[in-house]
Amino acid sequence: MKHILRALCVLCGESCKGKMEREIIYGINPVMEALKAERLTVNKILMAEGKDSPVLRALQQLAREKGIPVHRCSREILNQETGSEHHQGVLAYRAGTAYASWEDLERRINQASRFSVVLILDSIEDPQNLGSLIRTAEACGVQGILIPKDRAVGLTPTVVKISAGAAAHIPIVRITNLAQAVDELKKKGFWVVGAEARGGKSLYEMKFDMTVALLIGSEGKGIRPLLLRKCDFTISIPMRGKVSSLNTGIAGAVVLYEILRQHTQKTG
Amino acid sequence: MKHILRALCVLCGESCKGKMEREIIYGINPVMEALKAERLTVNKILMAEGKDSPVLRALQQLAREKGIPVHRCSREILNQETGSEHHQGVLAYRAGTAYASWEDLERRINQASRFSVVLILDSIEDPQNLGSLIRTAEACGVQGILIPKDRAVGLTPTVVKISAGAAAHIPIVRITNLAQAVDELKKKGFWVVGAEARGGKSLYEMKFDMTVALLIGSEGKGIRPLLLRKCDFTISIPMRGKVSSLNTGIAGAVVLYEILRQHTQKTG
Repeated sequence: MKHILRALCVLCGESCKGKMEREIIYGINPVMEALKAERLTVNKILMAEGKDSPVLRALQQLAREKGIPVHRCSREILNQETGSEHHQGVLAYRAGTAYASWEDLERRINQASRFSVVLILDSIEDPQNLGSLIRTAEACGVQGILIPKDRAVGLTPTVVKISAGAAAHIPIVRITNLAQAVDELKKKGFWVVGAEARGGKSLYEMKFDMTVALLIGSEGKGIRPLLLRKCDFTISIPMRGKVSSLNTGIAGAVVLYEILRQHTQKTG
Repeated sequence: MKHILRALCVLCGESCKGKMEREIIYGINPVMEALKAERLTVNKILMAEGKDSPVLRALQQLAREKGIPVHRCSREILNQETGSEHHQGVLAYRAGTAYASWEDLERRINQASRFSVVLILDSIEDPQNLGSLIRTAEACGVQGILIPKDRAVGLTPTVVKISAGAAAHIPIVRITNLAQAVDELKKKGFWVVGAEARGGKSLYEMKFDMTVALLIGSEGKGIRPLLLRKCDFTISIPMRGKVSSLNTGIAGAVVLYEILRQHTQKTG
């Protein structure tokens, strides 16, 4: 028996060449130009191991200033990713939309009419889940989303597409140290609530009459211990069936909408 | 620039040959055996146009008795789907798990300790959404799910996989005429609630202190007019952002969990 096969790109998951071309930029000047662009549109930079020059150092410096991770890798990976040998040892993955700054998030929080909600996503790896959570959070009127800079999927064009355009309407801030960011939010009066498969309170026993930073962990692993210790409350969603967990995007949506329900009831 | 290409099967979306082989059965005897299997595991049958014989008529008759759709198509499609010319004009798509009968559903409803909930999915086309809704419905303790026989995705192995095993724990009944099934549920005391993008009441104004048949429409098109007219109530989920809709799987989850919340509060 034969499969009906179609070649799909491993990176973008699609057979569209145009889309793929928009996701990768390579060569020193194109990457430098992308870094200098006013709206920040670079997710991550790959640089060939052992490669060094004044211009590459300037590029690295600029990336550091803009908070973009630079990873070293072999020339072979660069050849493979770009499909070329003319990458001059540097490659940038473009983001699907611009990240917001911490100040953008603070502005939104200050503008909120009553209780703010910030969604903190600890190491979501699946673009489907990240896109889905962004779409739902925007629909709930959440003030902003924090995602970690490493070991998590970023705002790739695929994620932006799955978010159905919502990624452009809600500040999404990429953070080097999520634990520090949680402390900052606590100083601003946020209560940190962690959603866990086996958390403390049932979601429906929790009173959300407060400013909430909702922490959602990664698929499978949940919230990392360091962050879990920072939670003022942990909650779990009631489970009435034989299946032991919900999909991460669904779990986030159920909690976000319960917070919205309670906040709306309080404010009338 | 080169894509990094991997050949994926158009039917199963995966590169796994074993999985593919389990999804299609062809040839008169193998299809007949699959139809006679005690647990019903066939989703749909394709039969070559103009092909007729006593054994094919017997096969058609058996499929009709079991409620399995038979579609006529060209030999070329059968050649392509099976990757062979030795299909004897007949092909069956296996289901990932067995469908339940109306009696299975009734049994679950009768066993329920208080308010039952049945989920009716009108023409969901995306396997991701169907799998996700099955997983969430099972987690909420829903008594059963109705899906239409035609113009909708069925219980394919992909859907069963996305449901994270939940499809095996909740009765999923395939219905020829959803409108008739809705009437049957009404006779049993169910109130039919349709979730619409721009429905009547806000979800949080609705009192679910009753036995609920929740009707969710297809992606994009919503609930068909004939079914919409049968709704006792329509509801919509509050939207606080700029994006105008939620993903179907998310919308279903938010409503199902609000029903669970209210039912749990009522029963203590």
